[in-house]
Amino acid sequence: MKDTISAVRVTPIAFRDPPLLNAAGIHEPYALRSIIELETASGLIGLGESYGDADTLADLERVAPALIGLDPFLLNELTRRVESLTVNRADTGLNLAPGTHGDKVTMRVVSAFEVACHDLMGQLTGRPVHELLGGKVRDSVPYSAYLFFKYAEHLNSPYQKDDWGEALTPAQVVAQAQRMIGEYGFHSIKLKGGALEPGIEADTVRALAAAFPGMPLRIDPNANWSVDLAVELGEELGSLLEYYEDPTPTLEGMAELHRRTGLPLATNMVVTSAAEFKRNATLNGVQVVLSDHHYWGGLRATQQLAAMCGTFGLGLSMHSNSHLGISLMAMTHLAASVPNLTYACDTHYPWQDEEVVAGGRIKFENGGLKVPDAPGLGVTLDRDALERLHQQYLTCGIRRRDDAGQMRRYDPAFEGLTPRFTARAKV
Amino acid sequence: MKDTISAVRVTPIAFRDPPLLNAAGIHEPYALRSIIELETASGLIGLGESYGDADTLADLERVAPALIGLDPFLLNELTRRVESLTVNRADTGLNLAPGTHGDKVTMRVVSAFEVACHDLMGQLTGRPVHELLGGKVRDSVPYSAYLFFKYAEHLNSPYQKDDWGEALTPAQVVAQAQRMIGEYGFHSIKLKGGALEPGIEADTVRALAAAFPGMPLRIDPNANWSVDLAVELGEELGSLLEYYEDPTPTLEGMAELHRRTGLPLATNMVVTSAAEFKRNATLNGVQVVLSDHHYWGGLRATQQLAAMCGTFGLGLSMHSNSHLGISLMAMTHLAASVPNLTYACDTHYPWQDEEVVAGGRIKFENGGLKVPDAPGLGVTLDRDALERLHQQYLTCGIRRRDDAGQMRRYDPAFEGLTPRFTARAKV
Ligand SMILES: [Mg+2]
Ligand SMILES: [Mg+2]
Repeated sequence: MKDTISAVRVTPIAFRDPPLLNAAGIHEPYALRSIIELETASGLIGLGESYGDADTLADLERVAPALIGLDPFLLNELTRRVESLTVNRADTGLNLAPGTHGDKVTMRVVSAFEVACHDLMGQLTGRPVHELLGGKVRDSVPYSAYLFFKYAEHLNSPYQKDDWGEALTPAQVVAQAQRMIGEYGFHSIKLKGGALEPGIEADTVRALAAAFPGMPLRIDPNANWSVDLAVELGEELGSLLEYYEDPTPTLEGMAELHRRTGLPLATNMVVTSAAEFKRNATLNGVQVVLSDHHYWGGLRATQQLAAMCGTFGLGLSMHSNSHLGISLMAMTHLAASVPNLTYACDTHYPWQDEEVVAGGRIKFENGGLKVPDAPGLGVTLDRDALERLHQQYLTCGIRRRDDAGQMRRYDPAFEGLTPRFTARAKV
Repeated sequence: MKDTISAVRVTPIAFRDPPLLNAAGIHEPYALRSIIELETASGLIGLGESYGDADTLADLERVAPALIGLDPFLLNELTRRVESLTVNRADTGLNLAPGTHGDKVTMRVVSAFEVACHDLMGQLTGRPVHELLGGKVRDSVPYSAYLFFKYAEHLNSPYQKDDWGEALTPAQVVAQAQRMIGEYGFHSIKLKGGALEPGIEADTVRALAAAFPGMPLRIDPNANWSVDLAVELGEELGSLLEYYEDPTPTLEGMAELHRRTGLPLATNMVVTSAAEFKRNATLNGVQVVLSDHHYWGGLRATQQLAAMCGTFGLGLSMHSNSHLGISLMAMTHLAASVPNLTYACDTHYPWQDEEVVAGGRIKFENGGLKVPDAPGLGVTLDRDALERLHQQYLTCGIRRRDDAGQMRRYDPAFEGLTPRFTARAKV
């Protein structure tokens, strides 16, 4: 039962990512992640997965040697060591990806290693991670169909184009939903908005509601609509929405929107830290928090966030960035163990077609993932795949996610400032 | 590593308790507790200690059979089973002992068993409980010298009187402090107030400050002073106090007091539940929360409370009722694992002279308790002592704590309503 960390490996990887549109621009041809391995004296390997941008990699690498000798149960000591070697920064990173925010350096490094420690604790005790978190309250964790407006293929065809095709009209997005729900069985829909002219996005919401009557539906414009536009579209679409996610920037803007529409607002943009949670308790800008263990400080810290949401009467859902199977399993164990995580979780997973875990792509069943009961996270590395994706990282040329820069290759005038839309285009 | 609960025993005990004065009246000659044993199929025994009043005992006994077969790691399932068999009540119980509040039935039952499950988890993994909570951040947990105004002996001499003597004057309380600090090495002082004429209590604070210069000092009148009196005495004594604990009733009253004096206010009376925590976030009635795992839902729920206090910028300390060694060890493991529990914890332990744990009375060193590193809580039962204290329970005649009723034996006119004091007595 006693074992200590004897080696720490952080491997940057890149995997193919489709040309998905969002408020910040467009996904680049490759998404970056880091794969964390904590190896113990007895030869166990605990896995973690985090962001793969150059800053995060540098932070992970700087901390890694300090974890040698650490008992993976000692999470407070992990935090202490990370805090002593990381410095939060003033830069805001990519606004729609809170894990990149400069104020979350310490939290995201703690998170990455904390998950790997949980994987080890599970292996050491012969228990699935969810049992270290109090045990699963559901046997399957539901995820939502995460729909995107998208181009048919990336600029300059870096690889064979994906088979999802173009999605720039309501009909194309409905077709995307039909395929995704057909393949995965999802029972909720999330539409990434803030990308196209707002009238098109509103029409898309209506088309989805008509095509999937009664299915919970959300739209997430990533703060790309002015308050007035968000009010106008909220009044139009509100009755079709389970919640209205980050339509407009700032907690104050969201609070005004909530006052004017009464709609339940969700966020992964304006409540992303303890300080913002506290401000929201007074401002009531959002009523649903999208948690993300990758920047909230790990699995236990996210359980604490869940307790806070319970205390303050806030709903709780789960945010995602592009990720692979280690993150997916960590999200699943966590969601399984949080009684008040009652919304289907977000995941970009259906948009990926590569994997680093043994056995390849993880399969959804009936829109959810069966909660694993094997020790730890329940996944191991496919080392050939890891090496291939690492080589892909080395050659892909991307070192920091830059959706706006990528969009400027299509449209040199693109600025990516939010809110880009203050009104519908005149018909 | 897999083991399940095969037997649940709840043993009521009574132990001698000195005639300590408080706002509600006076301690009865015996204090009641319940000793919880969760025995597993493999023969391990997990220990817990909780309230011993008739209502709590009935609740614990009703839930006990439902825990057979439970895996002690599955705390969410424990909670679910307790919730299905307990009903919160409208009665408020004893105001100064929040664990007795009717709205905390479920939480106190969960808490009692949750600690015993942690003891089992520790034994099953070969780890001290604090390592299941993230690991200790301090090797010793500091406690405070908990001073009381008291009578020399109980009415009708139910047993040989304690050797602390009478404490009804500033000089007598200073002597009590000198003895307690001399014996235990405490580095902080808490004075239980709300018992005598406020001028005497204020003089006692001043005498303690003079006798122990620089030592952190608190007074807890248990809501027995009106807001105006609390303001007047706060202005007089504030510079001598580390924090000012529950001088006046209600969260609104505390908020007014804080607005008028700026003093840091602490509580175990007006922030005792999630709902009250939320109200305080708006009202700012208190700035320091005294946690208590016996009614907050157990060790992990109290860690979540700690995270909430961190989020909202509140200080965190720890509350106590009369208790024995199992509770003391649970408090110590918990406090050791909570980075922001930075105040010395309260404990009534020095006022007790009996024990149920093997080895007898637990010893403080330099005002604190060394955090145990043995598996589980690190204590086992002295079965002879348990039987003796259980027999004492059967014969003592007390079934519900009733400090006011006890005081009426001395003073038939005593009402025990708060706030009893609205001004100092005229000199
Ligand atoms: Mg979002
Ligand atoms: Mg108190």
